[in-house]
Amino acid sequence: MTTERTKVDAKKLTDFSTKALQKLGVPEEDAQITARMLVASDLRGVESHGVAHLNTFYARRIKAGVINVTPKPQIFSQNPVAATMDGDKGLGFVIGHRAMTEAIQRAEKTGAGFITVRNSTHFGAAAYYAMMALEHDMIGIAMTNAIARVVTPVSTKPAVGTNPIAVAVPADKKPPFVLDMATSVVAAGKLEIAQREGTSIPEGWAVDKEGKPVTDPTKRVVGEGGLLPLGGTPTLRGYKGSGLGVLVDIFCGLLSGSSASIFKTSAGADYDHFFGALRIDSFLPVENFKKSMDEMIGAIEALPTLPGVKQVYVAGGYEAEIVKDREANGIPLHYKVIEDLQELAKEVGIEYDL
Amino acid sequence: MTTERTKVDAKKLTDFSTKALQKLGVPEEDAQITARMLVASDLRGVESHGVAHLNTFYARRIKAGVINVTPKPQIFSQNPVAATMDGDKGLGFVIGHRAMTEAIQRAEKTGAGFITVRNSTHFGAAAYYAMMALEHDMIGIAMTNAIARVVTPVSTKPAVGTNPIAVAVPADKKPPFVLDMATSVVAAGKLEIAQREGTSIPEGWAVDKEGKPVTDPTKRVVGEGGLLPLGGTPTLRGYKGSGLGVLVDIFCGLLSGSSASIFKTSAGADYDHFFGALRIDSFLPVENFKKSMDEMIGAIEALPTLPGVKQVYVAGGYEAEIVKDREANGIPLHYKVIEDLQELAKEVGIEYDL
Repeated sequence: MTTERTKVDAKKLTDFSTKALQKLGVPEEDAQITARMLVASDLRGVESHGVAHLNTFYARRIKAGVINVTPKPQIFSQNPVAATMDGDKGLGFVIGHRAMTEAIQRAEKTGAGFITVRNSTHFGAAAYYAMMALEHDMIGIAMTNAIARVVTPVSTKPAVGTNPIAVAVPADKKPPFVLDMATSVVAAGKLEIAQREGTSIPEGWAVDKEGKPVTDPTKRVVGEGGLLPLGGTPTLRGYKGSGLGVLVDIFCGLLSGSSASIFKTSAGADYDHFFGALRIDSFLPVENFKKSMDEMIGAIEALPTLPGVKQVYVAGGYEAEIVKDREANGIPLHYKVIEDLQELAKEVGIEYDL
Repeated sequence: MTTERTKVDAKKLTDFSTKALQKLGVPEEDAQITARMLVASDLRGVESHGVAHLNTFYARRIKAGVINVTPKPQIFSQNPVAATMDGDKGLGFVIGHRAMTEAIQRAEKTGAGFITVRNSTHFGAAAYYAMMALEHDMIGIAMTNAIARVVTPVSTKPAVGTNPIAVAVPADKKPPFVLDMATSVVAAGKLEIAQREGTSIPEGWAVDKEGKPVTDPTKRVVGEGGLLPLGGTPTLRGYKGSGLGVLVDIFCGLLSGSSASIFKTSAGADYDHFFGALRIDSFLPVENFKKSMDEMIGAIEALPTLPGVKQVYVAGGYEAEIVKDREANGIPLHYKVIEDLQELAKEVGIEYDL
């Protein structure tokens, strides 16, 4: 495994990604925002949402014209707490960043802020937006829908997208609580990683068009079977995962006046989002709250583990450790990702200097 | 099975439950609120949260003095959107009803309303509170924590309560979307039902103190192993269910200034809740939204099913059919539940006339 990977510096990777995006026509500030978010995912160890997608996903869609690099997003608002945004098919990162900033500003004024976004594109990892609330002593929420590729536990046709939910909550000395979960058992990117690494996937992640388990990650095709919802079978309550997926569709696709996953036909270029920010001092003094977060996290971390498991983590705790390591020692990129970035560098005419 | 059950009329069951609660010292209006909610659960087929608990759970705790039948709940508010309530150890139904009413009133004024509640008791099914928002054309949210009895996927000691999340969203002609899910694979009440009916439970619901699967529902004891989080094993992403459980604890236990599940020691008498209401017309015209809800629900219901499955339902759709049947034909109560209610009738000195 180690020989397949090379460590690269996060700052350099961000600069490289910024330059590449600028060459693709993205304005400097927007390119920086996007690059920072891609690298933030790699820093957190969430490789399914990092620079691995820069060439294969975002650059291709920008070149194909399905992502608008100079969008003019519009906001429609009925009251100080909430608003709807039209993303003008901008880069999801840029639209999402603007929408979450708006949610935070509204929460500063009223206590809570909610922005639903239609007509956007893929926004990367939901966690980043939710985490933008942390420094404001707020709870942050981010969700997105996507083309349907998750079956219900009693059908073999997709009903919803992988529709992730992210919630971030600040703590005091402990790392913040950061839950970022696809409402399917795994995100689609986990299958891509298995493809890239030539490994099989466990039973219970995906089914074929007859509802039978798929373990070959190259076999599953959109529309023919799909990913399983969190929980899996009806006995193990897969319909809860399904229900969460529909919930995300309601907040993103329907509240924004767009459409649910099941009606989306354009894989990769039709996404709706939802962002929320909630001021903690609406409920109690921030300091008390953060101390109680530390106490809870500490108590859960102190639980005895099953044999072979080092430690119990609360959501976000493990990623915080990875961030520390990768900030200090670099991000271990897979050679196929490096090849992709080198190809991109050549195409847009910049140096690959990582 | 059929001989073990007798159908009773919902209206009569509500009146009986109201009278029983009044005899236990609950003021008339509060008794009515509570009885309506208990019977609403039985009408929806959610027997784990219905009148089966009236004697064995609520009456016993009222008699033991751990539930205060004449509470004076207090509200502390920093802004128009949000507030914290102290439930004064009142009956959870009464406190929850008051808090959700407050959330709805705040949403009427500002667009959104959030109430976190500490110092309450068991509030029955979360769905009822979320559904209170429906007639106001709002999205309703309700959550509650409870004593820890759900393990993390890598420990055998409980980290969180079954900590359910309920969200209700209105549709037009279709039944509303109503997701009400314990963040464990199943709620604790499902094990009680298996106990009552003398059946085993499937592998994947609970583990013993060594982390081994439990199939005998009488075997699992609080503190010794526990229920599994939604998802189950780490491979199937049980830590997502765990994360959702912690999330509920943050909103209910920590934001309210109370405590997380892991610190609760009094089973059955120490609960915190969170309620939210979000006006749909903050984002788009209600009529458009409800039509798109119908379209999405219709498309998912039309998906092909696995062999032996009649229909795909969206969350709340199946329960809506049960409500119709039970409102017309009565609620089939298990004979052990009837015996319990007869015992209660005798104790409080009212007639069992169902």
